[in-house]
Amino acid sequence: MEIKELFKSYKDYVNKEVEIHGWIKKSRESKTIGFLEINDGSFFSNVQVIVNSDLSNFKEIFSLGIYAAVNVKGVLVEPENAKQDFEIQATEIEILNDSDKDYPLQNKRHTFEFLRTLPSLRARTNAFNAVFRVRSELAFAIHKFFNERGFVYIHTPLITASDAEGAGEMFRVTTLDLNNPPRDEEGKVDNSKDFFGALSNLTVSGQLEVEGFAMAYSKVYTFGPTFRAENSNTPRHAAEFWMIEPEIAFAELKDVMEVAEDMVKYIVKYVMEKLPEEMNLFDQFVEKGIKERLTKLVNSEFKKVTYTEAVELLQNSGKKFEYPVKWGSDLQTEHERYLTEEVFNGPVFVTDYPKDIKSFYMKLNDDKKTVAAMDMLVPGVGELIGGSERENDLETLLQLMEEKGINAEDYKWYSDLRRFGGVKHGGFGLGFERMVMYMTGMKNIRDVLPYPRTVHSMKEVK
Amino acid sequence: MEIKELFKSYKDYVNKEVEIHGWIKKSRESKTIGFLEINDGSFFSNVQVIVNSDLSNFKEIFSLGIYAAVNVKGVLVEPENAKQDFEIQATEIEILNDSDKDYPLQNKRHTFEFLRTLPSLRARTNAFNAVFRVRSELAFAIHKFFNERGFVYIHTPLITASDAEGAGEMFRVTTLDLNNPPRDEEGKVDNSKDFFGALSNLTVSGQLEVEGFAMAYSKVYTFGPTFRAENSNTPRHAAEFWMIEPEIAFAELKDVMEVAEDMVKYIVKYVMEKLPEEMNLFDQFVEKGIKERLTKLVNSEFKKVTYTEAVELLQNSGKKFEYPVKWGSDLQTEHERYLTEEVFNGPVFVTDYPKDIKSFYMKLNDDKKTVAAMDMLVPGVGELIGGSERENDLETLLQLMEEKGINAEDYKWYSDLRRFGGVKHGGFGLGFERMVMYMTGMKNIRDVLPYPRTVHSMKEVK
Repeated sequence: MEIKELFKSYKDYVNKEVEIHGWIKKSRESKTIGFLEINDGSFFSNVQVIVNSDLSNFKEIFSLGIYAAVNVKGVLVEPENAKQDFEIQATEIEILNDSDKDYPLQNKRHTFEFLRTLPSLRARTNAFNAVFRVRSELAFAIHKFFNERGFVYIHTPLITASDAEGAGEMFRVTTLDLNNPPRDEEGKVDNSKDFFGALSNLTVSGQLEVEGFAMAYSKVYTFGPTFRAENSNTPRHAAEFWMIEPEIAFAELKDVMEVAEDMVKYIVKYVMEKLPEEMNLFDQFVEKGIKERLTKLVNSEFKKVTYTEAVELLQNSGKKFEYPVKWGSDLQTEHERYLTEEVFNGPVFVTDYPKDIKSFYMKLNDDKKTVAAMDMLVPGVGELIGGSERENDLETLLQLMEEKGINAEDYKWYSDLRRFGGVKHGGFGLGFERMVMYMTGMKNIRDVLPYPRTVHSMKEVK
Repeated sequence: MEIKELFKSYKDYVNKEVEIHGWIKKSRESKTIGFLEINDGSFFSNVQVIVNSDLSNFKEIFSLGIYAAVNVKGVLVEPENAKQDFEIQATEIEILNDSDKDYPLQNKRHTFEFLRTLPSLRARTNAFNAVFRVRSELAFAIHKFFNERGFVYIHTPLITASDAEGAGEMFRVTTLDLNNPPRDEEGKVDNSKDFFGALSNLTVSGQLEVEGFAMAYSKVYTFGPTFRAENSNTPRHAAEFWMIEPEIAFAELKDVMEVAEDMVKYIVKYVMEKLPEEMNLFDQFVEKGIKERLTKLVNSEFKKVTYTEAVELLQNSGKKFEYPVKWGSDLQTEHERYLTEEVFNGPVFVTDYPKDIKSFYMKLNDDKKTVAAMDMLVPGVGELIGGSERENDLETLLQLMEEKGINAEDYKWYSDLRRFGGVKHGGFGLGFERMVMYMTGMKNIRDVLPYPRTVHSMKEVK
């Protein structure tokens, strides 16, 4: 039986024979009695197993290493005056496999840094076990949210010739022999001889591709890996991460913000209800007060402020920032956090950014200086989501491309969407790891990715 | 209002004012009256709109191109003697955007080949609209199946230094300047100078990485993109495709087969119930009888036969195959289809393949000649799923690695899982596109991938 089932309905099993299997998380014994804490990974808490010394393999059991695997038969009892609701009085324990003495996760505190060197093992610790279970439920909640609302899930391509932002640092994908690549007449590497017949990169966003499908289904989203070849060794940068990018047709910026707000509330609520034990762990050991912060978010009404108003608020705040606040410059995390934490004391959308600091596809406002973009700022983090209405007027789009140095010919299939019944539309992007960090209080992106890929990371760990 | 809502509950709106928006899929008019078929992509069927010629912009409306976008206000009526359950008598039509005259999807039959050149537009056609909606619901059904059963969803890495099969043809991921890469003392390209500090590839499978997490949660799965740099220009090969790989601890081959059978039945049933209109289209226009075939699958009990028995059955069948059947050779599609279609007349698991044709991680059987592997064969396709119990004995695993020429040091983190409480476990892989093809009757993998990536494909289409 899975221990999750036991925890859910142990009342049904009191004084009855039960059988579980799992790994020994803790073990202690005296001459006459021993205690094992067993977990099979199906539930956050361990099952306590009482072992009397008259069990034939008592000695063998208590010489096993931490994380040895066992099968336990016994009687479920309700102990008096104990922390746990139930325990199992063992009648038979079969040893399935020992764990060697050099097992690196002995029962003592390990730093997150040390555990990063053990990506294939660290999910066995309480903190990482909770993190990756939250990651899983959060992913499911996102699919559920969009599926219930009729959004069609589109797998946009990972290998691509385009660069969604016109500015990303990208990874090249190749099957050429780098030691001796084919060359053209000028001696340059001949990309036409590569696998796809042209220079190919790993995508930085599926947005442009998914816009095509928005013009077929009205409501679509993509949820897949994206890549940045940024040489940034920071707690917030990974070379490979997952993004959620919904796109909605017949929609303006306000509709996009509504979906973003609904989604964040929905998924936070879903995970808090589904995983209370894990959330308690984060609240106690990772970030005190995180449950209150998240509950407040779910119950708050998100505010709205334009970028221009936000700049004024910051300039008039009397607060000294590391980076100066100037109309035309992007907001820094310190500015974002001041707005959401001090000024609005809750989540806030900042809208209508200067066009010069935003991407070519964002809808130009009537003032010709700003675009219909938005960032969702939340306390404790700053920017969680960025999105925009897209420019749907062909002439304006082509002009914006030219201003940004985008080769219009490369994006003809994209601008053509405007010529063939294109309607006003918009969407947003949510970095999935940022959301997991926000839900768990973890401060380093390496600690929310199962096998993080960062600059130089293959040197150290597989 | 979304037209999906209208189709679901049009009875509530009879003789009432409604408002919809969408694209003109068809349009015809006489002097006094016109008809539009409108769709917003939320539902498979179009809404018929009746336009009287006294509408002020009647002429303008009927000079619009196919796929122009409109907003329609009107009264919902139940027509007598009409194909459709309801139609809308327009009172006001706002033109949102025209569609240019060179719109490539005019109302005539287009071949799938032609539509492949228009990946950003083809989801507007009935067939591809249905395919990609099935793809979306199938993905959701898979997540739902595993989530309900307590499987933890793990995002295994896309960029990797390992090669799960020891034999895959892989794409290299690099940020080196190919025209002038850094070189070591021997003049070879210096991989240690690359972004990750070592040679890095796109993954061919997340299985090995997810096994680590199976030893933490017992039940896990991965669902993400995988890559093959195979120079195969066939209807079944894509360079980028999605795979589902569950992994179960405390499990033997029979448990793996049970999950595989349950999953296939669950997701097929889910999609058939959720998308009856789309399934009718496939049944009528793509593969006659597909609904019956799928219904039969859902209601059948999957059979089991060993590879050795299967070889005997094939050899004694009297049937002449293109490829000879010999113990020790892999089964070809013709053999697989004969088994599932002629011999068993339904889905069948073939188990216990010769170890020499299977991967190093598969559990060696007691006969030392075969491994605890399985393929699920289904009528009309052949192999749908492949899986195995994994070798959990360290010595045997190391020996299998040596036999297959796998560098044990590279996989130490993997074999170490056996030293640290590793228990019997197994899993399987389902190629997602193959499943979509199976559900829809589509015969070319390019027609079930939103933006297919195949050899030379960047030359032609973005």
